[in-house]
Amino acid sequence: MARARDLGAGVLGTTSPNPPVGAVVLAADGTPAGEGATAPPGGPHAEVVALAQAGERARGGTAVVTLEPCAHTGRTGPCADALLAAGIARVVVAVPEPTELAVGGAERLRAAGVDVELGVEQAEAEDGALAAWLTGVRHRRPHVVWKVAGTLDGRVAAADGSSRWVTGAEARAAVHRLRATCDAVLVGSGTALADDPQLTVRGPDGTDADRQPLRVVLDRRGRLPATARVLDAAAPTLVSAAPGPRELLAQLWERDVRRVLLEGGPTLAAAFLRDGLVDEAVVHLAPKLLGSGAPLVGDLGISAIVDALTLTVVDVTRLGGDVAIRLRPNRHTGAGRTAHGRS
Amino acid sequence: MARARDLGAGVLGTTSPNPPVGAVVLAADGTPAGEGATAPPGGPHAEVVALAQAGERARGGTAVVTLEPCAHTGRTGPCADALLAAGIARVVVAVPEPTELAVGGAERLRAAGVDVELGVEQAEAEDGALAAWLTGVRHRRPHVVWKVAGTLDGRVAAADGSSRWVTGAEARAAVHRLRATCDAVLVGSGTALADDPQLTVRGPDGTDADRQPLRVVLDRRGRLPATARVLDAAAPTLVSAAPGPRELLAQLWERDVRRVLLEGGPTLAAAFLRDGLVDEAVVHLAPKLLGSGAPLVGDLGISAIVDALTLTVVDVTRLGGDVAIRLRPNRHTGAGRTAHGRS
Repeated sequence: MARARDLGAGVLGTTSPNPPVGAVVLAADGTPAGEGATAPPGGPHAEVVALAQAGERARGGTAVVTLEPCAHTGRTGPCADALLAAGIARVVVAVPEPTELAVGGAERLRAAGVDVELGVEQAEAEDGALAAWLTGVRHRRPHVVWKVAGTLDGRVAAADGSSRWVTGAEARAAVHRLRATCDAVLVGSGTALADDPQLTVRGPDGTDADRQPLRVVLDRRGRLPATARVLDAAAPTLVSAAPGPRELLAQLWERDVRRVLLEGGPTLAAAFLRDGLVDEAVVHLAPKLLGSGAPLVGDLGISAIVDALTLTVVDVTRLGGDVAIRLRPNRHTGAGRTAHGRS
Repeated sequence: MARARDLGAGVLGTTSPNPPVGAVVLAADGTPAGEGATAPPGGPHAEVVALAQAGERARGGTAVVTLEPCAHTGRTGPCADALLAAGIARVVVAVPEPTELAVGGAERLRAAGVDVELGVEQAEAEDGALAAWLTGVRHRRPHVVWKVAGTLDGRVAAADGSSRWVTGAEARAAVHRLRATCDAVLVGSGTALADDPQLTVRGPDGTDADRQPLRVVLDRRGRLPATARVLDAAAPTLVSAAPGPRELLAQLWERDVRRVLLEGGPTLAAAFLRDGLVDEAVVHLAPKLLGSGAPLVGDLGISAIVDALTLTVVDVTRLGGDVAIRLRPNRHTGAGRTAHGRS
């Protein structure tokens, strides 16, 4: 299952609006016979890729999948039928299908005599590559990852506005890898004007990656100049005049965006945090002190320590000379089946 | 040598103005025969403690010491002579004696035919328990450890001034352990007035430890009320009207303080940082966001990112739900022998 999770994580950012699923097929004797992950929309699902690789060796074997195989025909046929056709004897699933549209795979398999086990290492799979897709299923909005780089004393820029560079090369390279796992990268017009970022995914050699997330600038007042680098030809760009974070996320949802990287400044970050629209936070802290300058996050309407917005540390790592902290906000998100599906 | 370092670390905070040294004596056959650490001032040095434990087994053996054995008579006799009298054949030393007063131990031992090796794992010893004492030797002032607890966005208190509690129980317990390694704990009158802290070392059960560091309040304007908890009978307290950090440290130096924990608020921390008087920083970050409130550090007179005060991360650990980052400011400190000694 760990290998299946890794396979799913490897395609994070390339499958939306479909979930990034990973699948491993073991032959009847238990040896690995095939593996696969969800192809870009319109392409085969993970199980189908893994079955194709396994060929005849799948007969009597086991399929290990991070998400319950679908039972419906969307842009591709039902994966449950593909597993049956290949003669799979046992299916091990991490996350049961949460949508009404695609549900029924386990049932159909069991009816055909296949041994199906659901919920194996489910929490690990839900917190991994499937997290963003599950946010979409549950809340009908894209999953938001807030990334911010600041000093130890919580400043994202110095008093004169300078912010190049707060963090070192390793942390900045990590941001490019993080962008690559997202469908869209978002800033406000303030950041676009102050820093004029290109917001593309660049590799270690500085060249643009083949696949680029949608660049999004929230610019309600039409302040973005036509010469802004974010409007260059390197990647598609959406300039939105949405009145708030929720409306902006609705626009992105319609464009099949399921995972957004929020890279805006303190004002935009505060707007998303106030509305409870941050699902993950990635904080890069540089071992520097400024003593003044723009804060990590703007006003949250909080005046007492007991009302602080609390998060849970997921992990802490060192990136070159900097410290990276991944967190999840502490709030209860609704779960359970919904009527919304995948195709 | 690692064991000798641990022994020295175990007495950190109890030996000033003497260095917290650790010593291990091995018998001629290489088996451990005795170990010791510097006793409180007036008591025996580490070598003498270890030799007493080893007794006759020290003859022909090896002494492993974190600091070069002294050659002078202060409150106790020269350790070099004690090693000779015990018949030690070999002495392994991490840090060569840096003071003119106590130097000569290695020379005296060698003259008597003892095999002496200097500089073994010297950097580890200098960064460990001996760091504070070495700061004193080099700069003739106490070593300053700045400890601060803040939120992820660099706030030490909310907008209404509330700060109980920013961090969790584990981090607060770690602060008590840190206080126990220091000779003095320092706040400004602002913190004393706002939080009314007791500044004592308390154990896990909440009771005061037997040994308490000197409590110091920098109170230039005489604002501290007689009812302040920091003035209670639980520990000695110095209320200082020193005009600045440097003068305050000079006062503490005269009282044999060699390691100070700076626990003041943003204003006091900024004053020490501006003057280059912070030697170590311990930052406890709670995974919380406030969006407003008092900052981790006050104005440093820095306006551009390139002028940021930079530090180096020594280590990052998790303390309960919080993150602890230990750092050292990046500046060159003068080293080398001085005329100042130990007794």
